[in-house]
Amino acid sequence: MKIGFIGLGNMGAAMAANLLSAGHEVTAYNRSPDKVAALVARGARPASSVGEACQGDAVITMLANDTAVEAVTFGDHGILASLPEEAIHVSSSTVSTELAERLAQAHADAGQGFVAAPVFGRPEAAAAAELFVVAAGASATISTVTPVFDAIGQRTFVLGEDPRAANLVKISGNFLIASVIETLGEAMALVGKAGVDKQQYLELLTSTLFDAPVYRTYGGLLAREEFSPAGFTATLGLKDVKLALSAGEELQVPLPVASLLRDRFLTLLATGGSDLDWSAVGALSAWEAGAQHPA
Amino acid sequence: MKIGFIGLGNMGAAMAANLLSAGHEVTAYNRSPDKVAALVARGARPASSVGEACQGDAVITMLANDTAVEAVTFGDHGILASLPEEAIHVSSSTVSTELAERLAQAHADAGQGFVAAPVFGRPEAAAAAELFVVAAGASATISTVTPVFDAIGQRTFVLGEDPRAANLVKISGNFLIASVIETLGEAMALVGKAGVDKQQYLELLTSTLFDAPVYRTYGGLLAREEFSPAGFTATLGLKDVKLALSAGEELQVPLPVASLLRDRFLTLLATGGSDLDWSAVGALSAWEAGAQHPA
Amino acid sequence: MKIGFIGLGNMGAAMAANLLSAGHEVTAYNRSPDKVAALVARGARPASSVGEACQGDAVITMLANDTAVEAVTFGDHGILASLPEEAIHVSSSTVSTELAERLAQAHADAGQGFVAAPVFGRPEAAAAAELFVVAAGASATISTVTPVFDAIGQRTFVLGEDPRAANLVKISGNFLIASVIETLGEAMALVGKAGVDKQQYLELLTSTLFDAPVYRTYGGLLAREEFSPAGFTATLGLKDVKLALSAGEELQVPLPVASLLRDRFLTLLATGGSDLDWSAVGALSAWEAGAQHPA
Amino acid sequence: MKIGFIGLGNMGAAMAANLLSAGHEVTAYNRSPDKVAALVARGARPASSVGEACQGDAVITMLANDTAVEAVTFGDHGILASLPEEAIHVSSSTVSTELAERLAQAHADAGQGFVAAPVFGRPEAAAAAELFVVAAGASATISTVTPVFDAIGQRTFVLGEDPRAANLVKISGNFLIASVIETLGEAMALVGKAGVDKQQYLELLTSTLFDAPVYRTYGGLLAREEFSPAGFTATLGLKDVKLALSAGEELQVPLPVASLLRDRFLTLLATGGSDLDWSAVGALSAWEAGAQHPA
Repeated sequence: MKIGFIGLGNMGAAMAANLLSAGHEVTAYNRSPDKVAALVARGARPASSVGEACQGDAVITMLANDTAVEAVTFGDHGILASLPEEAIHVSSSTVSTELAERLAQAHADAGQGFVAAPVFGRPEAAAAAELFVVAAGASATISTVTPVFDAIGQRTFVLGEDPRAANLVKISGNFLIASVIETLGEAMALVGKAGVDKQQYLELLTSTLFDAPVYRTYGGLLAREEFSPAGFTATLGLKDVKLALSAGEELQVPLPVASLLRDRFLTLLATGGSDLDWSAVGALSAWEAGAQHPA
Repeated sequence: MKIGFIGLGNMGAAMAANLLSAGHEVTAYNRSPDKVAALVARGARPASSVGEACQGDAVITMLANDTAVEAVTFGDHGILASLPEEAIHVSSSTVSTELAERLAQAHADAGQGFVAAPVFGRPEAAAAAELFVVAAGASATISTVTPVFDAIGQRTFVLGEDPRAANLVKISGNFLIASVIETLGEAMALVGKAGVDKQQYLELLTSTLFDAPVYRTYGGLLAREEFSPAGFTATLGLKDVKLALSAGEELQVPLPVASLLRDRFLTLLATGGSDLDWSAVGALSAWEAGAQHPA
Repeated sequence: MKIGFIGLGNMGAAMAANLLSAGHEVTAYNRSPDKVAALVARGARPASSVGEACQGDAVITMLANDTAVEAVTFGDHGILASLPEEAIHVSSSTVSTELAERLAQAHADAGQGFVAAPVFGRPEAAAAAELFVVAAGASATISTVTPVFDAIGQRTFVLGEDPRAANLVKISGNFLIASVIETLGEAMALVGKAGVDKQQYLELLTSTLFDAPVYRTYGGLLAREEFSPAGFTATLGLKDVKLALSAGEELQVPLPVASLLRDRFLTLLATGGSDLDWSAVGALSAWEAGAQHPA
Repeated sequence: MKIGFIGLGNMGAAMAANLLSAGHEVTAYNRSPDKVAALVARGARPASSVGEACQGDAVITMLANDTAVEAVTFGDHGILASLPEEAIHVSSSTVSTELAERLAQAHADAGQGFVAAPVFGRPEAAAAAELFVVAAGASATISTVTPVFDAIGQRTFVLGEDPRAANLVKISGNFLIASVIETLGEAMALVGKAGVDKQQYLELLTSTLFDAPVYRTYGGLLAREEFSPAGFTATLGLKDVKLALSAGEELQVPLPVASLLRDRFLTLLATGGSDLDWSAVGALSAWEAGAQHPA
């Protein structure tokens, strides 16, 4: 397929590279153009504007937040104005359910296709084409872009026609990951202060009831206190927790652990940890218990 | 080995049966004697007093809380008074680190052995001899009772000489399970109110980052709202969260999610849910969001 | 003075009436015009549009939230477009610090004056002209509208030139009131369940360390379980807690009690209490402890 | 009256001095005898044992916690063994409702009187004889010791016959004070980070809805960051919050703000603040927001 790719951060660059490896024609755009060069070296065509990245069958956006996706979509010479009829916007960013709905409506009005397709996985998983894709949209549209999902991920879950559902599941999943970070951080602060070795403790957990990637990945980062360089920054972590809280406000669902996480992330940011990996929130329990601050 | 077994609840009865299956001689005691009969039918000898269960190489206690373990150990004609020198008390109950330490000291003073060996797993796992055993004590003592652990569990983790460590790890593990219940409950209240199917949501989670027994087991109970009969009651859940909080107080480690869980369990008990499975605390988020109360 | 008044809810109607009593010429506007009639009977001139209310020396807005204030200010034929140069917009609504700043800037650009002047007090205090006014803006501008403040309140606190400060203080004050509601609610759930009379308990508190209007007012509502009709609805309470949380996010200040209150208000709304007085959040502790829901 | 006084800390020494000033005969005992000398200089008789302090009409205990009160009451040659029949034990310490009940029962069994009479007020209030006394017990017994209350306090509230009620009210009152510290701390962290002067902010609050001693006293300590020397230590603050949580567990009442306070006090203790005034927990919000730690 001819695919435009907008947003070449840690995640996007790896996803675009896998599209190239799978034989797709990729036209790549990034706000700061230095990120484009590396991808061109792998065979991509550089785009000097959003519009240039919208000349193919589909365009994928992988950006930091609602504001960035709104800017490239609704702005002058944005995706909405540039994409041919019938072509498809695949939104892989973690954005609000409210924006997902607005994007779907706007593209439908313009005769374009839209699929919400957020992904689970850190940059390593993106590089290995092992992401999990959560997709929602019209089923014919999803079929058309299935080769995209196959190229970037290990499995795709289709959640129906309503794009908000895909974003809500992604948001709630990130909330669950952050919850694992917080609760493992509390447990490790407790057993660690009693002298239990944190690596051995983690091995025990992940050999038994907690034998899952989320415990191995984040437990490892916590046990090794390895918060830099960030795979996913604390700043982005706060953004995602706020998306969960907003979704809860819209649906009138209180989320006390998400509220705690909001305050934890604010504490981490206010005390110098904005650029640490978001797993560093799990080190705040030990900090409160008298250990060093992670930043 | 000749083994006494004290405490034939859901867990203890299954563990004792597996000791019999493995060829051990088991003398069984329970406060209410009706539980003993079923085990006698499988080949156990009945004991009409704690002392009668203390005539072998080891005695295992599997009781509800600190008070019950204190009563059978320190009471008149209790374990301490009845166990031969060199024989071993294996404490598999989930008790406080403080009691673990007192038991270890008292048995050492009496020339008896002591191993803290709490277990992870619900009654089904106990019945299938698939528990995980977390053991701490003198290494020679642990070696002696290894056949016991092999008969009841799938794997034993030895945590060193300090029995408190085994109980602390068990307590923190139960805290982590309760945290999964709470956070899954919040996430399911959120996506469920938006119309996402909870079973499909759980399948997505457990096929990806959350592919662990704890998510499958408790996620299944929550998705099916299957809180009765209880594998582990809310009352016992509260007891275990309080053990985590007490350990945190002793070590000066704040545990905000454990504090939230304490309040959740109190709410569940105060609103009629004492006898529900402890996974019912995960249904309180949906209740607060306008759904039916689980009781 | 010739004063326009926009927003004749419980609070605004009482404030406008006091301006009339103090001898000012008041032109009153409300989106639903039936509220205007009562004020016309007391001597006000009716305005059929926002612009008509902007022909005097000052216009006061007393509206429910940011959206409403934005609509009347920035909309077509809004305050910004209608107010004469040198005339003053007095914003008494509880709005975000971010909006306060935008309003100040926009009016400055248009050669108009702007004062942020949120007020503390419930409808009864508004009716009695006993509000407390918290004002910020250019000092000459504040001097000009001081007769307005004298007519509606018992005391005015001037907080300097930055209008955001007035709104932040108002927001934090409402957070403190909500905190009193929550904590009194918890304390009353506790002593009430033990059989202590809540009225007697409140009398003890307010005769000693807690001898303040906030405890007498909200404690009385809680002790009498008098949540309807609402002086200030739960829906507005949630709005104000969210303003506090937003201000905390902007300034990177975690606010755990505000987070708890957010979840409490969402619970109250989701369980049928949107139209109750916001003091009903204080009854949720007793509900969790087994008593009746306040709605 | 002939009165024994046991426990000459900051509070007890001041109370005993006021009993002397009111003309009572006071026999004073303290575990570390150096505290007795100052009181002897004011006219008290020194007691070298608990029993010596139990030879009058009444004995007052003012001690740090349950353990201390249990030790002097139930220990060998303790109050229970030493007090004449008909004489009265006045327990002014902040202790658990459970201990209050055991004391009442034990003294009744011994033919002695018992009154639970915890007090509200800091050392300054104790020195000025301006405490508030919350008393419960048999009404004839309370009448007998009313001269004691008149000598130490400005007002006595009688709560009926059940001594647990007095202790529960005291415990819940201390919880409310701690809540004011926490919530004022959050509000001051917020407005302070925006540049609002904390003293001016406090004056605004205490001139309006928050015009109560609790806001003036603790708000002043927070605004001046005056946490040492302690009028009431963080260690004692934690003890009292735990008493509230225990009472909540017994009555099945969740107390989320008390849970937060527990974690706050643990944080303060673990980071070096055990000996600070308990108002220092209110400085932890600013610490989390990037300011200096109070210790």
